[in-house]
Amino acid sequence: MVWLQKLFTKTGSDDNLEANNYERDWVSLDPEKFGNTKIYFSTHEQIDLYELEELCDSVGWARRPLRKVRKALEHSYLVVSAWEVKGTKKTMIGFARATSDHAFNATIWDVVIHPRFQNKGLGKVLMKYMIRKLRSDDISNVTLFADPQVVDFYRRLGFILDPEGIKGMFWYPD
Amino acid sequence: MVWLQKLFTKTGSDDNLEANNYERDWVSLDPEKFGNTKIYFSTHEQIDLYELEELCDSVGWARRPLRKVRKALEHSYLVVSAWEVKGTKKTMIGFARATSDHAFNATIWDVVIHPRFQNKGLGKVLMKYMIRKLRSDDISNVTLFADPQVVDFYRRLGFILDPEGIKGMFWYPD
Repeated sequence: MVWLQKLFTKTGSDDNLEANNYERDWVSLDPEKFGNTKIYFSTHEQIDLYELEELCDSVGWARRPLRKVRKALEHSYLVVSAWEVKGTKKTMIGFARATSDHAFNATIWDVVIHPRFQNKGLGKVLMKYMIRKLRSDDISNVTLFADPQVVDFYRRLGFILDPEGIKGMFWYPD
Repeated sequence: MVWLQKLFTKTGSDDNLEANNYERDWVSLDPEKFGNTKIYFSTHEQIDLYELEELCDSVGWARRPLRKVRKALEHSYLVVSAWEVKGTKKTMIGFARATSDHAFNATIWDVVIHPRFQNKGLGKVLMKYMIRKLRSDDISNVTLFADPQVVDFYRRLGFILDPEGIKGMFWYPD
């Protein structure tokens, strides 16, 4: 069992943050912010599509056909979920996924943290967890498309805007 | 056999441009620009990695390990190659690929046209071919990361820069 330690302390490092497949990677939490809450990350936890929809509802995202969501998850290179555990009950409180060519590039999509757990540093740990996993697979180009209100969040994680003038572009029908 | 017609005429439409799997999709060429050259696109043509490397060399890209290139091609959702045919000999003169979650998002990578065929409209047709294929698979969000010198090229194809302030970002190690 791997502990994601020291991520909430200013002087800590994340050297012992490791993506450990098929395991529950427990997050070491600041009791002042989280009380008795227990949270783990997983790359292989079964995702209930209705529970994922509920999580996306909680942050106001537009609903998407579950058939397509299922397909997208099946064809994502990496799917990370975050779970709160209370007794024998677990609740999905965070999610992110990435597409990839398994070699050079990965693109991160659908990063979401339940509002109850926002502004506590959990999104940051989730992203570090994803990056660590992608880097451990020797994928060097980790990209994403950031909404304006989260550009600074990603910048603080080391993401760079338009490096060397490279621009993100979207195609829409004429 | 599908002809990609009228794409080089100002008044033409590309309504009969269709991505037809397992087929050679012949490009209708302006004889003033192309002479007797015959060119086809394919989504399933066998790619010789050394020939692809040569094509990438021709536009000055940094070389990449062939082992990783093979893996990237295997795990790309769409790989399009363009071929010049002379008698019984065919030469790869263009290439592009896309990663995707098969449902919502696709990201286009590694778009290259051999310098002998640049500035003749072929890159435009290649991109339209890719978009058409992705759209026919009901993928609504077609994205890419454009170097500064090709931003206008993609803009003319209908790609939009930072729509609603969404920014492309890249992660680099600290």
